[in-house]
Amino acid sequence: MQSIPVDKANRFLEPGPIVLVTTIDGGKPNIMTMGFHMMVQHDPPLVGCVIGPWDYSYGALRSSGECVIAIPTVDLARTVVDIGNCSGATLDKFRTFELTPLPARKVTPPLIGECLANLECRVADTRLVETHNLFILEVVAISTDPERRERRTLHHRGDGSFVIDGKTVDLRDRMVKWRHLQD
Amino acid sequence: MQSIPVDKANRFLEPGPIVLVTTIDGGKPNIMTMGFHMMVQHDPPLVGCVIGPWDYSYGALRSSGECVIAIPTVDLARTVVDIGNCSGATLDKFRTFELTPLPARKVTPPLIGECLANLECRVADTRLVETHNLFILEVVAISTDPERRERRTLHHRGDGSFVIDGKTVDLRDRMVKWRHLQD
Repeated sequence: MQSIPVDKANRFLEPGPIVLVTTIDGGKPNIMTMGFHMMVQHDPPLVGCVIGPWDYSYGALRSSGECVIAIPTVDLARTVVDIGNCSGATLDKFRTFELTPLPARKVTPPLIGECLANLECRVADTRLVETHNLFILEVVAISTDPERRERRTLHHRGDGSFVIDGKTVDLRDRMVKWRHLQD
Repeated sequence: MQSIPVDKANRFLEPGPIVLVTTIDGGKPNIMTMGFHMMVQHDPPLVGCVIGPWDYSYGALRSSGECVIAIPTVDLARTVVDIGNCSGATLDKFRTFELTPLPARKVTPPLIGECLANLECRVADTRLVETHNLFILEVVAISTDPERRERRTLHHRGDGSFVIDGKTVDLRDRMVKWRHLQD
């Protein structure tokens, strides 16, 4: 895993992939699957996400104020669904799903070695947690594997149906042109 | 356009597509491009999104409390970028980009006829607007065109680079199995 600047968080999250989230509670790491998240601000990078009391990770996130958002690729599709359909209350998910916990740089919850990227986060705002279970997180470190060949992420359409990344279209020149005209 | 239940909002938004947002200000409709959004709750459907004072639509959304989130497909890629790189302060974007405004059922801003789906929204919570420009919207109606052949959406990776929907993977059976075991 290689460290990259935190202001690149949007490259991974704005496309809206299904993600995994690690937390730690009393020394015990856990993983959940999360589909409700968004970028809130580019720099410093803020992320909004919904984690509720029905998620075992909720208590750990509230008490520790830390988590890691890991980006799985298509090879982990079944694992992503299975992680979302069992509970850390009764299972050690790293062991059950044969995933590799790696030490993070700035937070206590572990990275997931099998993921494309890992975003280390600290809770930055909890004002909407009571009513909407909506946490605002700040991304404080990002690790990614630049050598990784499989980079296609999954997007959840609901009920276990996913769309996989296809072709890309690069309209960067068009952005520059219009920005220039706007200045 | 055919009306579908509002609790299907996640089918369109959870995959994280780039979207268009219409508002109306003094009778004048406008369109913006938006990448920072997420589902917050399934039913009643709540959506979080970031629209800031730098967006011309911000004033209209704050004063009217209404907008429409329209889901464009790959055929509109250039239009989506161009809409995001000019301002409704000086342009009639419906006319400039040759898009068709259609009457909505429950809100005043128009639907976009060329989009896959249109989600009519009302502002439900503004507590994070001052600090994070984060609006919570409730989806009050959804229209979609079931006959439409092009259904591939775009996901923004930043700087005008997009990934297009590819193949789908259906793991619904796996969801049901695990849910059943959890009960």
